[in-house]
Amino acid sequence: MAARRMVIIGGDAAGMSAASQARRLSSRGDLEILAFERGHFTSYSACGIPYWVGGEVDGPGALVARTPDTHRGRGIDVRLRTEAIEIDPAGQRVLVRDLDPRGDGERWYGYDDLVIATGARPRRPSMPGIDAPGVHGVQTLDDGRALLDTLEGTRVERAVVVGAGYIGVEMAEALIRRGCRVTVLERGEQPMATLDPDMGRLVREAMTGMGIDAVTGAEVTEVMTGEDGRVRGVATKVSEYPAELVVLGLGVVPETVLAREAGLPLGESGGLLTDLAMRVRGHEHIWAGGDCVEVLHQVSGRTRHIPLGTHANKQGQVIGTNVGGGYATFPGVVGTAVSKVCDLEIARTGLLEAEAAAVGLRFVTVTAESTSRAGYYPGTRPMTVKMLAERRTGRLLGAQIVGREGAGKRVDIAAVALTAGMTVDQVAALDLGYAPPFSPVWDPVQVAARKAVAAVRAAES
Amino acid sequence: MAARRMVIIGGDAAGMSAASQARRLSSRGDLEILAFERGHFTSYSACGIPYWVGGEVDGPGALVARTPDTHRGRGIDVRLRTEAIEIDPAGQRVLVRDLDPRGDGERWYGYDDLVIATGARPRRPSMPGIDAPGVHGVQTLDDGRALLDTLEGTRVERAVVVGAGYIGVEMAEALIRRGCRVTVLERGEQPMATLDPDMGRLVREAMTGMGIDAVTGAEVTEVMTGEDGRVRGVATKVSEYPAELVVLGLGVVPETVLAREAGLPLGESGGLLTDLAMRVRGHEHIWAGGDCVEVLHQVSGRTRHIPLGTHANKQGQVIGTNVGGGYATFPGVVGTAVSKVCDLEIARTGLLEAEAAAVGLRFVTVTAESTSRAGYYPGTRPMTVKMLAERRTGRLLGAQIVGREGAGKRVDIAAVALTAGMTVDQVAALDLGYAPPFSPVWDPVQVAARKAVAAVRAAES
Repeated sequence: MAARRMVIIGGDAAGMSAASQARRLSSRGDLEILAFERGHFTSYSACGIPYWVGGEVDGPGALVARTPDTHRGRGIDVRLRTEAIEIDPAGQRVLVRDLDPRGDGERWYGYDDLVIATGARPRRPSMPGIDAPGVHGVQTLDDGRALLDTLEGTRVERAVVVGAGYIGVEMAEALIRRGCRVTVLERGEQPMATLDPDMGRLVREAMTGMGIDAVTGAEVTEVMTGEDGRVRGVATKVSEYPAELVVLGLGVVPETVLAREAGLPLGESGGLLTDLAMRVRGHEHIWAGGDCVEVLHQVSGRTRHIPLGTHANKQGQVIGTNVGGGYATFPGVVGTAVSKVCDLEIARTGLLEAEAAAVGLRFVTVTAESTSRAGYYPGTRPMTVKMLAERRTGRLLGAQIVGREGAGKRVDIAAVALTAGMTVDQVAALDLGYAPPFSPVWDPVQVAARKAVAAVRAAES
Repeated sequence: MAARRMVIIGGDAAGMSAASQARRLSSRGDLEILAFERGHFTSYSACGIPYWVGGEVDGPGALVARTPDTHRGRGIDVRLRTEAIEIDPAGQRVLVRDLDPRGDGERWYGYDDLVIATGARPRRPSMPGIDAPGVHGVQTLDDGRALLDTLEGTRVERAVVVGAGYIGVEMAEALIRRGCRVTVLERGEQPMATLDPDMGRLVREAMTGMGIDAVTGAEVTEVMTGEDGRVRGVATKVSEYPAELVVLGLGVVPETVLAREAGLPLGESGGLLTDLAMRVRGHEHIWAGGDCVEVLHQVSGRTRHIPLGTHANKQGQVIGTNVGGGYATFPGVVGTAVSKVCDLEIARTGLLEAEAAAVGLRFVTVTAESTSRAGYYPGTRPMTVKMLAERRTGRLLGAQIVGREGAGKRVDIAAVALTAGMTVDQVAALDLGYAPPFSPVWDPVQVAARKAVAAVRAAES
């Protein structure tokens, strides 16, 4: 009997996790695994690019978890610089093009199982100058390389980062480390639209303290170019910001052109819709994972596009397990994210105020100041925890944390509690690790939970 | 109508949290609050004593969260150096003695509600020399002061710590910081009997690397004294360890002599038994909290003596709420604890192997090596996570973590998951905070959970 064939489009986290897991469960005689990647790398950490640019990490090698040759040695046939250009679900085949002009040209490959792991691409608003040399996204290692070429090959004194989300603030830190004067332009009311504005304000204040010029309410209308065609700054409706380098940190959109053309189901964000086993809805032999899919948000009950390497890895493993003959599901997410700008740690999980209101929830909010360690212990740092709890039931709906060392990963307490559907009373009663070097006697998350308990009660009386 | 009277025995975390919370809920006209403390301090952090001794924290002032005068200013009548010597439950009264010989002598006080918060006392095995000058426990601020007097008033070159539990290892670090040569003598197979021996071995190896001489299987039989009556070392069955200072780190036992004499119900450890509202079982008007009670361990279903400041604070708050006319319960614990020796972080939650076996659970264990941050990110440190999962169901039963920076508080993930009754499959699927400076793409706890999932499956096949 001929081996079944698993074809994978996209050689990063989701695709190659799926390949690796399927390989673990199936012999080469039973399953042939073929992965197409249009870039030069496999299984890399795109999240590490800001630290590579900032010079904290040697790239790109260090960011590659598994090279193509490693995968090949394990029986996964990886084809680099090979782009899938059409999916034919009825014929169970994929058309690929070798990007090397001396290569194989175009060719159809049949599949028994197809994995779509095409990732995401940076938002690139259409405006004059957006494609000028010196304007960079930071989604792939190839993007990172190009950005570093600009940094190293040009005199970059001033850099503008457009967008103050996770990538934007991380890139601001990286460019500060590179000695640039950095301006971050954010369209919204505050940086970090993944936080409520009152928490975003804390981030803005901290960024200013770090020498990062954070401008809000700034809608970029044009990338200005010089006579040499290179970028010389950006313009908003009201001002101009000279710069030799522009980084786009406007977030990403699912890379699902192929999927759409093949008639596969997409959600509101343009991400693929799957079932719990990560099978594309209505398509028995097609799976999808990573930054090209929408995931179930367990608190809102909606599907959302939340591109994160940790989800991609988990989803890839689920796909590989199922294709390899096992059984696994991806139950969804609770919207956890953590980041830092210099020594400021920023985290969230669950729903923001606007997100909770949008799905019909009524809630109370509290904000509590606390410290990372016992107040008297050396190195203790202030921390602000905001919490949302459902009215009447007291169910935890979300938490946001801004602080210094020890702040970020505390969000995990709330993330697990959210997943379990705990009330803020239950959170306040949790048995968390306590010792003076690690926490005050009430963990900061519990200080907030206690306030939330009182707020829920007050809202009912 | 005369005010009701709340009488509190013991002025530390549980007692004064109860007092403060009851005060918040009841006016002075409704509730008189009277607290008796036999020492000199109220509301202090006994857990901070090792850091005071080590010179990292200024004591004792910094360790006092609220002074007697602060409490008095809020309408709580605190009597220091006043020891309760008899409880008369039938007569609803307490006999107290003023320890100041020029003071009030003995006197009965009636109560409407009594709170027993008498804490714990260090285990002090009966053996020759145990009461010699230079032998110290570290349970109260007065103990800490006495120990520092020895350190500062005597030439202490060599110190022996008897017992390698949390207090023992923390005191070992403190004495190293003070420039002593430190030997820790542990009766058991490994230090940290709160961990399984295989994890305790990691602690021993790290302690040795820090220059702490950790001797296991060492049963102390005698404290040796010199001609001046002061300590000059300790002897085990096989050896002698010269020292000018001996610290007892053998753990503590509930201080419940008064309660036993009054016929109140005690558990196997000698701790008071309460209901979920922290009322002493069978006694409508008597409450108890803190280090003198046994708590429900939610994983084993047994009551256990787990003396920790964080539990004392929570229990005190529950008592104060109930006495103050509100309603609150303390649902129990899952056995979480965290500590450090120099830069080694040590944490556990749930059940050890022996504890799980003792309550009839069958389980698999796994141990996983991982890192605190993305492998390529600067400052990433190795971490070992051990996990116990129930056979057949895959329910998480316990986790132990030994590592460096970023290891200790990760135990909270497992603590919340345990409280929620999650399986290791569910833990592996959790949406935890991920970014390269904070975590690998699979959090170390999830790396262990994945191995546990596989082990549970393998055990069934």
